[in-house]
Amino acid sequence: MAQLANVSIATVSRVLNNSKPVRPELRERVLKIVQETGFQPNAIARSLVSKETRIIGVMIPDISNNFYSNLIYGIDSVISEYDYSMFLAISDEVVDKELKYLRLFKEKQIDGVIIASIHFLEGNIQTLQEIQVPLVVTGHDLPGYQIPTVNVNNVQASYDATAYLISQGHRKIACISGPLWDPPCGLDRMGGYRKAMRAHDLPIHEGFVVEGEFTAKSGYEAMRRICEEKIRPTAVFVATDLMAVGVLNYLYDHGIRVPEDISVMGFDNLELASLSRPMLTTVHNDPFMYGKAAAEQLLRQIRNEPVERMSSVPHHLVIRQTVSALLE
Amino acid sequence: MAQLANVSIATVSRVLNNSKPVRPELRERVLKIVQETGFQPNAIARSLVSKETRIIGVMIPDISNNFYSNLIYGIDSVISEYDYSMFLAISDEVVDKELKYLRLFKEKQIDGVIIASIHFLEGNIQTLQEIQVPLVVTGHDLPGYQIPTVNVNNVQASYDATAYLISQGHRKIACISGPLWDPPCGLDRMGGYRKAMRAHDLPIHEGFVVEGEFTAKSGYEAMRRICEEKIRPTAVFVATDLMAVGVLNYLYDHGIRVPEDISVMGFDNLELASLSRPMLTTVHNDPFMYGKAAAEQLLRQIRNEPVERMSSVPHHLVIRQTVSALLE
Repeated sequence: MAQLANVSIATVSRVLNNSKPVRPELRERVLKIVQETGFQPNAIARSLVSKETRIIGVMIPDISNNFYSNLIYGIDSVISEYDYSMFLAISDEVVDKELKYLRLFKEKQIDGVIIASIHFLEGNIQTLQEIQVPLVVTGHDLPGYQIPTVNVNNVQASYDATAYLISQGHRKIACISGPLWDPPCGLDRMGGYRKAMRAHDLPIHEGFVVEGEFTAKSGYEAMRRICEEKIRPTAVFVATDLMAVGVLNYLYDHGIRVPEDISVMGFDNLELASLSRPMLTTVHNDPFMYGKAAAEQLLRQIRNEPVERMSSVPHHLVIRQTVSALLE
Repeated sequence: MAQLANVSIATVSRVLNNSKPVRPELRERVLKIVQETGFQPNAIARSLVSKETRIIGVMIPDISNNFYSNLIYGIDSVISEYDYSMFLAISDEVVDKELKYLRLFKEKQIDGVIIASIHFLEGNIQTLQEIQVPLVVTGHDLPGYQIPTVNVNNVQASYDATAYLISQGHRKIACISGPLWDPPCGLDRMGGYRKAMRAHDLPIHEGFVVEGEFTAKSGYEAMRRICEEKIRPTAVFVATDLMAVGVLNYLYDHGIRVPEDISVMGFDNLELASLSRPMLTTVHNDPFMYGKAAAEQLLRQIRNEPVERMSSVPHHLVIRQTVSALLE
């Protein structure tokens, strides 16, 4: 093509991409050959010249979890506006897969990366730093790294949820946290619960603090363990809605009424929360907003515009039907 | 690089990709320069030579719908095994976006395409045919086209669901279908219901046949309309679980007991079906299996192996708690 027109490849590229001015005469010569040969610049050849693939890599742990599918929806709503497309990597929370995809991101020379969940191990972090493309991490705070993050304040939101239960007269409050290997849903949400209990001088019965594993089934099992304790809580704060639905189902299956016998507070405000009966009182934590915010931060980086080091997505309580006031 | 080694680009490519034998002497020369220059073949340059990108394009209408996120999970479980990665296109059911992504698939020279939902309009079909890469369509039958499809037999599955209600003594059976613009969930599932009613000589009260719009809310509204009829059905077949949960919620909110007062049969067997209380009796229609089957058919095409023109994913009834036998 460049040979036919007797111009350099760079000139062809400039004309086709309109990237830099080209003498009108050269420009015409190139366009004429394009017409005559039916030459179609393909995206791959073009990206070799422009160093731009207009592809964003997104890594999530689990696509069947509605939280992450809505996160992707939020990312897509922004990037598709700007004609970026998405390279989706599902890690299944397997460290080897995470590393494989990070390397693939690097190899495919994508324009930016959004990571929703990752094990922060040395190999991963090193590869993350080597990729040298704009990067945003969601759902984690990363003190000590220069990587921009988008997250809800999990400690504060869990504090608010627990404090609400306390304001309704509850004193014996249980907590089902996320798994502790996931700091945001594990440590942080349990931490907010503990902080609220301490701030109100309430004792924590350690048999009431149980670690779940994200699934509804694990919430079901965690509630079973709590109910096997000698004393029974009047309320339970559950670190994710999916686990909270498991809690509601355990209580329903065992004839324990919600909220008359026990109050339940969730976290996330998934669609599920309003589909359950009774409808779940919960913390609004919108994955679509995370996705949007992360994509906006990423595009800003790509355009060399200033970026917030830690963006916080706002949260609020959604009061529905699963928490009752305790009359003393 | 090829210049430094004084060999052709094709030779470099052969050595780096191990694609064809190269004289040992040339091979060594290339590898030496690779070492000296730190040359890293990147995926883009490599794909220009090998004509292979190892990327599969996947188009879905809606990522926040669990059905499609599990479909993607099924696709990913197969292609990631073979080191393919996924380019995800979310069409939002917007015709313009569908066309845009089809063109992008073509431009990015991806190795294959799986389409889960598309408007079968002329522009789309023409572009589909122009892409000229292996293609599989899921969730649609395409009589009259040579495109391989993966689908459940929607008519038969809906027939079976309705016939089960009839076998339990129900005669006044309502049907909430998917939207009619979506033939598989609209026409086909409603068609199976009508066929079963006719086969058992049961009259269809047209006020009992209502078109839903996939969402739980639309199921809720459809059930409201059915309950406003002068007579009440004893059972309702709902074409998707999400709408069926809307039906359950309408009945719960209006003090109508399930299954004592009315029986409810869903379709899909989403996780939601076992999370609802009472647990939903439904048709098992596994999107993960669709995804797996579609990916397998696609990889077979890519390897030039024979492909089934229409693959059928098996279905079966899952009997839980929302259908009761009617005593006469």
